[in-house]
Amino acid sequence: MTLKGINKILFGGDYNPEQWDKSIIDEDIKLFKKAGIDIVTLNVFAWAMLQKSEDEYDFSFLDYTMDKMRQNDIKVCLATSTAAHPAWMAKKYPDILRTDFYGRKRKFGLRHNSCPNSQTYRKYSAELAGRLAERYKDYDNLVMWHISNEYGGECYCENCEKEFRRWLKAKYKTLDALNKSWNTFFWGHTFYDWDEIVLPNILSEHSDENSTAFEGITLDYRRFNSDSMLSCFNIEAKEIKKHTPDIPITTNLMGFYKTLDYQKWAKSMDFISWDNYPFADTPFEEVAMSHELMRSLLKKPFSLMEQTPSVTNWQDYNPLKRPGVMRLLSYQAIAHGADTVMYFQLRRSRGACEKMHGAVIDHVGSSQTRVFKECAELGGELKALGDTFLGADTKSKVGLLFDWDNWWATELCAGPTKLKDYKAGATRYYKALNNLNISTDIISVEDNLSDYKLIIAPMLYMIKDGFSKKLKKFVSGGGTLITTYMSGMTDCSGLVTTLGYPGELRELLGVWVEETDALMPFCENTIITKDFGTYPAYILCDVLHAEGAKAIAKYGKEFYADTPVITKNHFGKGCAYYVATSSNYEFYNNFLEKICKELKISPVMKTPYGVEATKRFKGKNEFTFLLNHTGAVQSVVLDKSYRCILKNKTFEAGHAVSLNPYDVMIITPVKDKAKRS
Amino acid sequence: MTLKGINKILFGGDYNPEQWDKSIIDEDIKLFKKAGIDIVTLNVFAWAMLQKSEDEYDFSFLDYTMDKMRQNDIKVCLATSTAAHPAWMAKKYPDILRTDFYGRKRKFGLRHNSCPNSQTYRKYSAELAGRLAERYKDYDNLVMWHISNEYGGECYCENCEKEFRRWLKAKYKTLDALNKSWNTFFWGHTFYDWDEIVLPNILSEHSDENSTAFEGITLDYRRFNSDSMLSCFNIEAKEIKKHTPDIPITTNLMGFYKTLDYQKWAKSMDFISWDNYPFADTPFEEVAMSHELMRSLLKKPFSLMEQTPSVTNWQDYNPLKRPGVMRLLSYQAIAHGADTVMYFQLRRSRGACEKMHGAVIDHVGSSQTRVFKECAELGGELKALGDTFLGADTKSKVGLLFDWDNWWATELCAGPTKLKDYKAGATRYYKALNNLNISTDIISVEDNLSDYKLIIAPMLYMIKDGFSKKLKKFVSGGGTLITTYMSGMTDCSGLVTTLGYPGELRELLGVWVEETDALMPFCENTIITKDFGTYPAYILCDVLHAEGAKAIAKYGKEFYADTPVITKNHFGKGCAYYVATSSNYEFYNNFLEKICKELKISPVMKTPYGVEATKRFKGKNEFTFLLNHTGAVQSVVLDKSYRCILKNKTFEAGHAVSLNPYDVMIITPVKDKAKRS
Amino acid sequence: MTLKGINKILFGGDYNPEQWDKSIIDEDIKLFKKAGIDIVTLNVFAWAMLQKSEDEYDFSFLDYTMDKMRQNDIKVCLATSTAAHPAWMAKKYPDILRTDFYGRKRKFGLRHNSCPNSQTYRKYSAELAGRLAERYKDYDNLVMWHISNEYGGECYCENCEKEFRRWLKAKYKTLDALNKSWNTFFWGHTFYDWDEIVLPNILSEHSDENSTAFEGITLDYRRFNSDSMLSCFNIEAKEIKKHTPDIPITTNLMGFYKTLDYQKWAKSMDFISWDNYPFADTPFEEVAMSHELMRSLLKKPFSLMEQTPSVTNWQDYNPLKRPGVMRLLSYQAIAHGADTVMYFQLRRSRGACEKMHGAVIDHVGSSQTRVFKECAELGGELKALGDTFLGADTKSKVGLLFDWDNWWATELCAGPTKLKDYKAGATRYYKALNNLNISTDIISVEDNLSDYKLIIAPMLYMIKDGFSKKLKKFVSGGGTLITTYMSGMTDCSGLVTTLGYPGELRELLGVWVEETDALMPFCENTIITKDFGTYPAYILCDVLHAEGAKAIAKYGKEFYADTPVITKNHFGKGCAYYVATSSNYEFYNNFLEKICKELKISPVMKTPYGVEATKRFKGKNEFTFLLNHTGAVQSVVLDKSYRCILKNKTFEAGHAVSLNPYDVMIITPVKDKAKRS
Repeated sequence: MTLKGINKILFGGDYNPEQWDKSIIDEDIKLFKKAGIDIVTLNVFAWAMLQKSEDEYDFSFLDYTMDKMRQNDIKVCLATSTAAHPAWMAKKYPDILRTDFYGRKRKFGLRHNSCPNSQTYRKYSAELAGRLAERYKDYDNLVMWHISNEYGGECYCENCEKEFRRWLKAKYKTLDALNKSWNTFFWGHTFYDWDEIVLPNILSEHSDENSTAFEGITLDYRRFNSDSMLSCFNIEAKEIKKHTPDIPITTNLMGFYKTLDYQKWAKSMDFISWDNYPFADTPFEEVAMSHELMRSLLKKPFSLMEQTPSVTNWQDYNPLKRPGVMRLLSYQAIAHGADTVMYFQLRRSRGACEKMHGAVIDHVGSSQTRVFKECAELGGELKALGDTFLGADTKSKVGLLFDWDNWWATELCAGPTKLKDYKAGATRYYKALNNLNISTDIISVEDNLSDYKLIIAPMLYMIKDGFSKKLKKFVSGGGTLITTYMSGMTDCSGLVTTLGYPGELRELLGVWVEETDALMPFCENTIITKDFGTYPAYILCDVLHAEGAKAIAKYGKEFYADTPVITKNHFGKGCAYYVATSSNYEFYNNFLEKICKELKISPVMKTPYGVEATKRFKGKNEFTFLLNHTGAVQSVVLDKSYRCILKNKTFEAGHAVSLNPYDVMIITPVKDKAKRS
Repeated sequence: MTLKGINKILFGGDYNPEQWDKSIIDEDIKLFKKAGIDIVTLNVFAWAMLQKSEDEYDFSFLDYTMDKMRQNDIKVCLATSTAAHPAWMAKKYPDILRTDFYGRKRKFGLRHNSCPNSQTYRKYSAELAGRLAERYKDYDNLVMWHISNEYGGECYCENCEKEFRRWLKAKYKTLDALNKSWNTFFWGHTFYDWDEIVLPNILSEHSDENSTAFEGITLDYRRFNSDSMLSCFNIEAKEIKKHTPDIPITTNLMGFYKTLDYQKWAKSMDFISWDNYPFADTPFEEVAMSHELMRSLLKKPFSLMEQTPSVTNWQDYNPLKRPGVMRLLSYQAIAHGADTVMYFQLRRSRGACEKMHGAVIDHVGSSQTRVFKECAELGGELKALGDTFLGADTKSKVGLLFDWDNWWATELCAGPTKLKDYKAGATRYYKALNNLNISTDIISVEDNLSDYKLIIAPMLYMIKDGFSKKLKKFVSGGGTLITTYMSGMTDCSGLVTTLGYPGELRELLGVWVEETDALMPFCENTIITKDFGTYPAYILCDVLHAEGAKAIAKYGKEFYADTPVITKNHFGKGCAYYVATSSNYEFYNNFLEKICKELKISPVMKTPYGVEATKRFKGKNEFTFLLNHTGAVQSVVLDKSYRCILKNKTFEAGHAVSLNPYDVMIITPVKDKAKRS
Repeated sequence: MTLKGINKILFGGDYNPEQWDKSIIDEDIKLFKKAGIDIVTLNVFAWAMLQKSEDEYDFSFLDYTMDKMRQNDIKVCLATSTAAHPAWMAKKYPDILRTDFYGRKRKFGLRHNSCPNSQTYRKYSAELAGRLAERYKDYDNLVMWHISNEYGGECYCENCEKEFRRWLKAKYKTLDALNKSWNTFFWGHTFYDWDEIVLPNILSEHSDENSTAFEGITLDYRRFNSDSMLSCFNIEAKEIKKHTPDIPITTNLMGFYKTLDYQKWAKSMDFISWDNYPFADTPFEEVAMSHELMRSLLKKPFSLMEQTPSVTNWQDYNPLKRPGVMRLLSYQAIAHGADTVMYFQLRRSRGACEKMHGAVIDHVGSSQTRVFKECAELGGELKALGDTFLGADTKSKVGLLFDWDNWWATELCAGPTKLKDYKAGATRYYKALNNLNISTDIISVEDNLSDYKLIIAPMLYMIKDGFSKKLKKFVSGGGTLITTYMSGMTDCSGLVTTLGYPGELRELLGVWVEETDALMPFCENTIITKDFGTYPAYILCDVLHAEGAKAIAKYGKEFYADTPVITKNHFGKGCAYYVATSSNYEFYNNFLEKICKELKISPVMKTPYGVEATKRFKGKNEFTFLLNHTGAVQSVVLDKSYRCILKNKTFEAGHAVSLNPYDVMIITPVKDKAKRS
């Protein structure tokens, strides 16, 4: 993200003065100043205030707020307010209400409540976005647009059903193609008329949300639903661009959010922003992995649009972020590519379901709370940092492939185990890379593979058109590929290959997977490697035949004991590994460390477990972030001389720097001999 | 309850001869006589029999039964039969059928099945009640009215939706007031027309039964629903009073039943009656606590309307009540203020879902069963007791505050932990008081606080209008208050205070709660007191600042270690404690024992764990009940000389009386020197 | 089952060439030949292909397939394709769609999707069956008919509601009779008009699928639903019989499938066939028990219609069948009376929800897979066996009573414990009999009891009209009866006896059960026998009085310690045991071993645990099957001289034969002295 005239990491967050008397704004602005807050996200949920009836628009309160912000030199991320429609609109135009997975037509309530294919919704949301852009286009503090909010959910209404048929017609052209693609000859579900097709939910093909009789129809429905919402985004974006073509547009994403294909969405977004709400017990590596995904979507710095300064309220148990943890998580975002640090929310609501959600300014309205003080301290630091690493790049030699269609398709595939989990499959590899401090991009099948030395594609179940060729070219050109069980099995429709698994990848990997054993709970097999130990094998075990590949590990048990479990196949100038099962973290760490060493992919730095190290590059400078995610003091031996930016202190190579619990250190190499600290 | 001409504890229960041939009545009456049964509840579910179609009423069978009872000098508690409408009525007037939380219009079936706002229901239920009262008003054995049965459940039909809007209009007058109260500016849910408001359920604001996006609307819905059913009760009561103004009216309550605000209902009831169905593993203190609530509603003796003589059938596992346990539970009710002992049911049904529910007379129809014999033995005892302590009072110096609005509001509050549990919060305190044998009333915010020395108000989350003043007056006048975490947070609408928690109580308690830590499962902190030991801290830990109050205990762990967890604040002539977390029973026992000692609130008697001691007062006499809830022999040392009423035996002070497993002893002080037992 | 011209165990399974290009058929036939496959089930799900619109039938593809099979001398089991209706039919005639238990009208999707009372369904399914029969009647390789597929599920549509009322009217004649039977006086649910009756589901009498307020209505609904589907079967069968009166008709059953009363269905079926899909952790005895039921339905050999050659896909975890296990399970079916070995499926689908289900021919289409090779080996063995024991009988002296009405009624009975489980109650006894290698039939109340020496009737809760007399006649004639807790309690409507439990069996058993204690989880009592040890007592404990019966075991604990728990009553020439609780397998093994010994019921052979032994009789020959269900080598000492049929080897009496893991041995006695092996 590049924002005109911004030369620091923006600091602020969601602000909802419409819930308060106007007088509160002045008080809040004073507190903003005190905390170093220089950006507010306005207007996220104010549609009902802005449009009081079909013909009555009233921007007076927003005018007032916008003016106040401009007067006080506070930047604005302006939302379009279309994430929740007004009650009057629901009453007047019920087509705007969604129908849920259980076939129930909803009434007014909650948010994410508009049917994405409702003509009413599309018409009025576009109109509102256009009016806002026209009205506020000349506010020089308006630096970014925020369309709707956390798009999500699904709709199964009749209108969506009709649109789905149109979407299918556009995709398949003929029913014959559709029937083949979905294999409707199975159970005699052949369609002879487009209108015979109904949405796949509990009333038709599903027995629960993830169990469908025809993965083809459900897969297409998920694509359609994601596309439908993306259309809503695009319709608003188009209206805005008419008035403010140069102000970048985003919508706040939610990390690995299964319902929407963010890799497809990213193409429509000027920059990526997202909301980071880890649970108290979420491993830090999983937070990091989400940041990598967000950065990798456009391969550019992103905006941390929301995080809580203290607590969430919607988790089962909402512990306080310990002193220092909010700062740590803020820097973790920056370390992985964020160029803003923003909160939900600046002032805590008095009523409704987020009143217990933390805020910079608490109900009591004071600057004397621990939370306010920690925010203000961070605000000060960010101000001091200025543009030091604003816009800095991340460079990765490892690409971890993640693909929404595969996520959906593996989940919808009936069998071989309910424990298959696409996201978890990828996370096992990512966690090891993170612990090794190996910089990693989360890439899509459309990315340029030649940027990487190592591509890891866990559970590459569905092979999209042309992708096997792309992979072969990558490997034959010298790249290294790792893939796993449940790979190469189907085409884009989920139709299984008849080439023998892993289908189009069989030659590249040099193996034929004959069958796959799903382990009962509490059962495990073993992976016996030649040179790096023995590990457990979990969940699924392919029984395979090496066809050219070399076994580098074999199973230890069952009737397939002593047959290959990990193979390596030389292909052109590169090689391809097949890992036929899943294992524990020790395995992934050792396996990937070994391979990265062979490929000369270096870690950012060696650190003890719990201290993350990442690097960003700006011009000829580079910045290393050391993040202590533990509650204990940790020590890191520096590989060369560095200057600590926050403390402006220099350390010699070989010096063991000490990190307090939850503390952060940002260091940059120094050429001249460092003085002792 | 005072019943004209009744000079003993009535003994009997639900009787449904309409399920049998008429001949059974004679046989049953013989068995009633044998068992000492002198009251039957008739006509609980006979609407379909009494009103066979819109215009056709037929009271012949009830006439027959009523006559039989009168001839045999058996009192009648006459029910109005309106707890389940006839099938023909459901077919002819579907408006009588409820719509459930999931938006499903129900068909005929179950009970509690009438929409409380159905005009059909109100019209015909009132008419039936009136006809019954007119017809049977001259039966001198008709001693009480029993309207409907176990009111409960909810309805979400269109008719209720319309009535809800009317109810809201009456409450709020303007939409502006309503919007503010519900904070509808949040998520832009502002209403511009009353008709835009829909009932809060799974189709609108809820994600499950207790999760709502707007606690304001749900809180009002729960109040409305409770009120709607109370109207139904009142409509019937009014018809009855026209004919029998002097016969007291009740409906059978269900202890701590969350759906209905019994404190509000009590105002419309002539006396309280309730149905006591503990699970086999319900602690005896919880049963006691329900009795306290029931007695405290009107501060008068109540009726034990139902209990099973042997087994229930609807629990997952229905063990037999061990020999003696039914008697013990009957006396426990009396010990806490009951003036009747009644069963569901006198004769066991042959078919439908309660056929496996225990009864005095079993399917086999014999007087030779263990259960019949135990009932008959109790019947004999009650006859012998006569009016010894009929109508006797209970005197308590401790009031435990329990408030339905707070129950609903804390549950609907999204955050900070799913383990917050209002009822459990109160139970922790009650259990300790019960174990200390400290007599306790369960009081409402409308009660007269000056009756008490100690008020305990756990989780006093919502401060109703004027209540903080009332508490201050109580404390400044010399009273002692204990309150806890999650107190003083909101007004009646659930809008959070901006005064700093605990809001209006901040001055009284002398503390400011800055923030609250919700503990992850399996985590705990510690409470370190100065003079009574160290205890665990569970679930929620407030981080607070003493503002005048003195810390009497501090946290042992986390970043808020060594900060106050229990504080004491002198205020006027009294003092107020704040307990910022929850703990184990040892803590509550020791904490309350210490405070009661300081306040000179004496226990009824000292007993070993498992032996409950309560006292009732009649004129200048007092009666102490010793209840052995354990399966072992227990020994109690008497503090003075007593006469045992059931055995007519006298014991000296200091004597250690022995209680057999599940046995009961009722003793009354004697002035003269007792002879040795 | 007797099939004209078949002189071997047919080997094959479901084949769906309509999912593939025609060319695949030739390839597959080659593979069939290789595997010894001689029968295919065709046309299971092809309705949409055969009837493309209301008037357009197209049999060309089926003609092609049928011709191919005939040319290649492959037998055909021809299905009628009516288990899933076409999409166009659902769109045109929505009455064909079911309404589910939650009152939701379904849309097109899944299978088992037709309302059994839909006139559209009945008309077109009958027409299709008739057309198929007429068209293919002259194919001499058409050896059996397979109507629909795995009938099941329920429908709650308005049409079913109307039919239900007709069904009730035919059954009860008057509403008075119905009201009495359902005890509708309870809760005043009396019906005055047939049209007031609604289907019992979540909208009416149910709180969940197995909890009903009126077991009478739900019991009748289950009977009605089973009957409705049976009508559908009969309608098709009638059309088929017009054209092919001599070709036997079946539908594939599913073992103990609660929804359909297979004992009633069997009367309409020419032979029984079923689908055997054990879970990886299903005990082998439970598989055996299902085979016994299937054989006992018509007391004739049955068809194993489906099993997976390797994996299922729909279980939570789908492990591979270990090498040998598929063969073992195939022989287990034969050992219990199967005369075919058939698979679902011969070729694996490429798409939709069964694509991961195992098949003889995998996606890769090769004969080189482990699974294909194991199938082909079995195919060879079965060819070699020819008609050696085709059509052979099973002879049992023990009858285990199992009754669908009792299954439904005990489940619908509210109380006394949720752990009562009719099927489990029967399984406890069966498992012991299986482990003792005592041949057992699973019989119905209509079977001829005089065929047996011992009848075991666990939880004989509902006594059907005349059945108590039948039992008395059996026992007084010299038979032995064992029954248990929850017996003799109700009549056919579920109305409880007033004779004292066990009601009509009280005299026969010589006991009166006064009451029943339901044990809380983790509680147990003990059974102390006089001469065969002490055992735990679980779940339910009747408290009973011996009235002529002799206690052969007493309780060890609780207030009913030292009272009878197992009694024996001499009645005429026989005797009747009452077992008042449930226990562990050791108890059942010892108890039944003792009784069988007394009754001179001999085991097939003595084997170690895990080796099953069964026997079939053909003419003067008998064949003993030894099945090693363990993963270890097992040894069995032969009681006389035998010839091993598969290996054509002879063993002397007393020889200890060795069975490899999962191996099978079929032996037949030899008269002459056997040579040493």
